[in-house]
Amino acid sequence: MDFLKTYATLIESEIHQLNLPETPKTLYEPQRYILASKAKRVRPMLTLMATGMCGESIEKGIPAALAVELVHNFSLIHDDIMDQADSRRGSETVHIKWDESTAILSGDGMLIQAMIQLHYVADNVDHKKLSRVFLEGINKVCEGQALDMEFENRLNVTPDEYMDMISGKTGALISVSLVMGGICAKADQKKLEALSEVGYSLGRAFQVQDDILDVIADPEKFGKKKGGDIYEGKKTYLMLKLLERCNKEDGKWLINCLENKAMNQDDVLRVINLYEKYGIIDDAESLMKTYYLKAEKALEIFEETKYKGDLLQLINFLKNREF
Amino acid sequence: MDFLKTYATLIESEIHQLNLPETPKTLYEPQRYILASKAKRVRPMLTLMATGMCGESIEKGIPAALAVELVHNFSLIHDDIMDQADSRRGSETVHIKWDESTAILSGDGMLIQAMIQLHYVADNVDHKKLSRVFLEGINKVCEGQALDMEFENRLNVTPDEYMDMISGKTGALISVSLVMGGICAKADQKKLEALSEVGYSLGRAFQVQDDILDVIADPEKFGKKKGGDIYEGKKTYLMLKLLERCNKEDGKWLINCLENKAMNQDDVLRVINLYEKYGIIDDAESLMKTYYLKAEKALEIFEETKYKGDLLQLINFLKNREF
Repeated sequence: MDFLKTYATLIESEIHQLNLPETPKTLYEPQRYILASKAKRVRPMLTLMATGMCGESIEKGIPAALAVELVHNFSLIHDDIMDQADSRRGSETVHIKWDESTAILSGDGMLIQAMIQLHYVADNVDHKKLSRVFLEGINKVCEGQALDMEFENRLNVTPDEYMDMISGKTGALISVSLVMGGICAKADQKKLEALSEVGYSLGRAFQVQDDILDVIADPEKFGKKKGGDIYEGKKTYLMLKLLERCNKEDGKWLINCLENKAMNQDDVLRVINLYEKYGIIDDAESLMKTYYLKAEKALEIFEETKYKGDLLQLINFLKNREF
Repeated sequence: MDFLKTYATLIESEIHQLNLPETPKTLYEPQRYILASKAKRVRPMLTLMATGMCGESIEKGIPAALAVELVHNFSLIHDDIMDQADSRRGSETVHIKWDESTAILSGDGMLIQAMIQLHYVADNVDHKKLSRVFLEGINKVCEGQALDMEFENRLNVTPDEYMDMISGKTGALISVSLVMGGICAKADQKKLEALSEVGYSLGRAFQVQDDILDVIADPEKFGKKKGGDIYEGKKTYLMLKLLERCNKEDGKWLINCLENKAMNQDDVLRVINLYEKYGIIDDAESLMKTYYLKAEKALEIFEETKYKGDLLQLINFLKNREF
């Protein structure tokens, strides 16, 4: 994706120049490790595009872009402990490569480094406003993660509750990435609200799409086992919609499967058949499209610039992804 | 301690008014729980005293005072996981009462709430400066905790390295508590540096004193088993000083004990005897007094006010504590 190259190069170079201290190793090595792992850097790109779209040179958004990327990595370190995930981006997770204590502490340190980045914004940028938007956003991410954990122990989660959870867990940081880019360009409130809307819509669209791809994607390209979410008994949008819509008999079987939390290949195939029987995938695809459209709609108030073009192209790319 | 009552009442009332949201419970209940546990609130008191000493009404320091108390509690939640501590202030620790994931997440949330408090400072207070001092301080606390963890696996820690570790783990937040109080009163750089010095000295004095009290305090008053640190094989200032000073024979025995990490009552008594033989306790007491004196000295540049009087009285109380 050539149109992303300028942003990507700039972000990698800035991350490289962070120059975290060498010691104490327990604190900084895991931070360097996760930052060096291959990542798409979507969030900081959004920040830079937003700064450009609001009429400033994208360099002005760099501290905010770094802040969102650092916070994203902080949340990965801590979420991987909570989810007991062993690998991430093809490498061992921090708590596996080191240990849980080191992962907790280095995650804390990374959250602090993220907030420290905001001090490097230009003097004429409203630091207090930037800080408030950022912190309220990160708090929403924590709320989303809390809901996600609570949902694991509940069977009566509705699709709407799921979308609210996603709004926090995924949407809030994407929204904050864009809004902070706008604040760095001193955009007015109307533009900031539009950027926020774009972010939340993208977050929702992206997650529903992830849930769909689990079932329909080519496992080779997607990098995950087909129906992996179903094997794990995850309460995805599809699963919750199915629970809401299916008849008593199918529901009884499904709940029984989810309560036992272990599905075999036949169960998974049966769930996928039920998705088709009840039109769940079509429904989810239509919801996803609605949110992508909402994001594009919210961008209409911005002038046509190269940056807006890049953002629309990025949205288009995400919309059509197969992995 | 009557002279502390005004501060204590104000702080408890402000904590009570924080009004953390009710849900998600997983995120906010542990935060409410740890804030409701009985605590001395020394750090926020220091903030308010510093604001008063620098010529402002103490109310102006409240957001900073709340921020340091919240950050202190964030660090307790996460440290207790890392130290696998089961109880704190006579109650179950968060990761025991709930679970580790909940403790990680609610600790994260508490750190964010702490930062959010700083937005409530008066408009004429330099928010960016306050934020920078605060974050750099918390990062030093993390560095101290990292060193502390690294020391557990090293036998060649020097007493000087120990004091550096303490500077971060305990001193940095006490220093930040005072400096932020000064910033809220728009104190000049000279005063802020003096406040920082007071904080670091108090932190060092306090920790060395804790190490001494483990051996000489009345266990009933101190609330811990006599020699508890020795039983645990902790590398306290006393232990490291002893390792540095003792002869080869005593050293060989001591290292053997520490490597096996299990001391019985006879071993503990023998260590205490070695402390006496090598004058370790006298030495530590003299170091502690030096730091308390340094703190008092650094306060000399401040005018004589009720607040300075209160702070000196607090230092005097700490100096003479037997628990």
